Amino acid sequence: MSTEKFDAVDVIVTKRDGHRLSDAQIDWVIDAYTRGVVAEEQMSALNMAILLNGMDRAEISRWTAAMIASGERMDFSALRRPTADKHSTGGVGDKITLPLAPLVAVFDVAVPQLSGRGLGHTGGTLDKLEAIPGWRAALSNDEMMAQLDGPGAVICQAGSGLAPADRKLYALRDVTGTVEAIPLIASSIMSKKIAEGTGALVLDVKVGSGAFMKDLDRARELARTMVDLGTDAGVKTVALLTDMSTPLGLTAGNALEVRESVEVLAGGGPADVVELTVALAREMLAGAGKTDVDVEAALKDGRAMDAWRQMIAAQGGDVDAVLPVAQHTEQVLAPADGVLTRLDAYAVGIAAWRLGAGRARKEDPVQAGAGVEMHAKPGDTVRAGQPLLTLHTDTPERFGRALEALEGGWDVTDGAGYAPTPLLLDRIDAQH
Amino acid sequence: MSTEKFDAVDVIVTKRDGHRLSDAQIDWVIDAYTRGVVAEEQMSALNMAILLNGMDRAEISRWTAAMIASGERMDFSALRRPTADKHSTGGVGDKITLPLAPLVAVFDVAVPQLSGRGLGHTGGTLDKLEAIPGWRAALSNDEMMAQLDGPGAVICQAGSGLAPADRKLYALRDVTGTVEAIPLIASSIMSKKIAEGTGALVLDVKVGSGAFMKDLDRARELARTMVDLGTDAGVKTVALLTDMSTPLGLTAGNALEVRESVEVLAGGGPADVVELTVALAREMLAGAGKTDVDVEAALKDGRAMDAWRQMIAAQGGDVDAVLPVAQHTEQVLAPADGVLTRLDAYAVGIAAWRLGAGRARKEDPVQAGAGVEMHAKPGDTVRAGQPLLTLHTDTPERFGRALEALEGGWDVTDGAGYAPTPLLLDRIDAQH
Repeated sequence: MSTEKFDAVDVIVTKRDGHRLSDAQIDWVIDAYTRGVVAEEQMSALNMAILLNGMDRAEISRWTAAMIASGERMDFSALRRPTADKHSTGGVGDKITLPLAPLVAVFDVAVPQLSGRGLGHTGGTLDKLEAIPGWRAALSNDEMMAQLDGPGAVICQAGSGLAPADRKLYALRDVTGTVEAIPLIASSIMSKKIAEGTGALVLDVKVGSGAFMKDLDRARELARTMVDLGTDAGVKTVALLTDMSTPLGLTAGNALEVRESVEVLAGGGPADVVELTVALAREMLAGAGKTDVDVEAALKDGRAMDAWRQMIAAQGGDVDAVLPVAQHTEQVLAPADGVLTRLDAYAVGIAAWRLGAGRARKEDPVQAGAGVEMHAKPGDTVRAGQPLLTLHTDTPERFGRALEALEGGWDVTDGAGYAPTPLLLDRIDAQH
Repeated sequence: MSTEKFDAVDVIVTKRDGHRLSDAQIDWVIDAYTRGVVAEEQMSALNMAILLNGMDRAEISRWTAAMIASGERMDFSALRRPTADKHSTGGVGDKITLPLAPLVAVFDVAVPQLSGRGLGHTGGTLDKLEAIPGWRAALSNDEMMAQLDGPGAVICQAGSGLAPADRKLYALRDVTGTVEAIPLIASSIMSKKIAEGTGALVLDVKVGSGAFMKDLDRARELARTMVDLGTDAGVKTVALLTDMSTPLGLTAGNALEVRESVEVLAGGGPADVVELTVALAREMLAGAGKTDVDVEAALKDGRAMDAWRQMIAAQGGDVDAVLPVAQHTEQVLAPADGVLTRLDAYAVGIAAWRLGAGRARKEDPVQAGAGVEMHAKPGDTVRAGQPLLTLHTDTPERFGRALEALEGGWDVTDGAGYAPTPLLLDRIDAQH
């Protein structure tokens, strides 16, 4: 006789037939899946049933707690400062973590930013920072704590000990068409963030062609689900819904984005990157109890830059090194005088990826210098023959497919009927 | 680069999002699954999406054709007689195949009855016949053809060459909570029956507590789906919906049911077994083009018995051997004078199974003599202290759990409000 508390088929059938999973069923199925007692094909059927029949708030909350319980939890209570973290659902040119983490650390808030690598058309924060000579992503827990206690900000690779059930589940969802289930997306993100032990969390939920969520209603539903999960777990959580129909800033690519981030930390940089960095910093600081602070001043007066230099140096990065530059470039020119009314985030993301900035498989390397540099953003006036984009790569045979990706990805018109899309679309906070 | 025509995730997502699968997608996914290119967890997600989002008639038809194409097809065109087959969705005490196959063969119709073993509370035809000393279930194709050409009826084990995709798929559905999808049930049954090459097919779709389908509407939907599939494949197909709220006949168990079948072939036997045998024989004969035949006469005058003896002897069975008898019996007595108003098929099926007539796992042996003998059927008047049931087993420690299964499984009342359930509930034929 089996000593298991439940039978996997009974759990699957419960959700298949549209019923709630009990707390005990959820605890068991996540634990038994982690132990290998629930087989991949059983979890796959359950995932599809969850995708099609949904889970309610209490089920998602328990599911998330069970994933957290599958691994270790970090504990920042020994730090002498509050903690705050940010998570972005991923976009093109989204380098915000780079200026944001040191900016928040300026105000005596510790920022334990566990990040990932890129896969597909959205870049990864660790790939970007690895463009800096010497910088290393892998830290021990002790190194991470020391850095949070010193410079205050750390951006590093998540250890495999946090929510191991999620790692296994994500790999399964990826090959079984079950990535797009809001309860599963939300619990995947939030299990890691809650296990990480942050006190406050700001979610940047991207909406638009370059984002995972293409429409605002689905993005709102995901944001609401994640904010509820964080709130239920005692983390001060808020979500901003932000536009990802066009890339953030003027660069998409690893070293290119580091350079742009440093411009922001020096008090300059593209307006949209500054706007979002400041908005997210204010939310993180408010979540950590700091409401009366002048965030912009810290960008202008060099304090954020100092924090950046300390953070990078603490992880072995040479802050004064020249960043890698791609060996080959090619330009896309404006065909006529007019207004750039559309520059599609997905097209730019795919182009940057094909130029070598991203990877198709987990084990692929990335090119530090590859990517797309933009010389105009939607709403900008352009002249015939002026460069719109510069493509960068070490492997010029990639230009062809990158240019294909950009075909139909932008419009230059007389500007009639053009209306700018706001960057900040909505804000979702805890419901009381 | 992969040389595969499709990506499994795209096929899954198509059905997940409620769209039709194309013919090419269906052909590919069944073939690639059989080759092991589509993984178990991918097929599992697709099955759950099919269960929840359905397939239309053309999709199910193509799915079935793809499963048939995964293996060999039999060809009875060399026989000098028409062929007819019967399939039952499974019930308790359902020994109908035993008298039916020889009865139909009397009228120069060949009956290629490929059968299975029992799993769970419903018995298997092969298990029943194996209670006859010497009888063997496994025949080569040549042996099967010779028997169809001679005695005319054969009941044997399906070779592994028919619809191998179905074998693999069924094992997967069994552990992933996706058995109950009508398109998958219908295509599983019909792929084997169509590949088997019968000219006419009668489906006995059981309805009630002891059946796979508990309600008449779902059973009608399954019957309609299967009749359409057979019709689309050029097989003359008709379905009878028959009651399975109470067991068929007065026995559930292997040797017990062989004995009862022989009674029917001798012109006696329980009325319900005779009624259903005759009704199914008439449908099979009509499907084979024989409409003006006296089926009952062949049971009364010994022709069906002769055909049975030839059929059993041809497969090595000793038709005059004494059948195995269980070593231990125990009785359930009527508690009061009254009318037996309910005798639940599922309760009797589970009791017979626990007594040793069935198996919990494919590799388990069965007891030839074990089972439940019924001394009354719903509507019968009983006297206090009269035996209602006799339980048979070689392993008396099983009586306890068998009696537990029967608790609450029958009612003896004053008979007020009792209305008999008809055996034949509906008939579904081809829509033109």
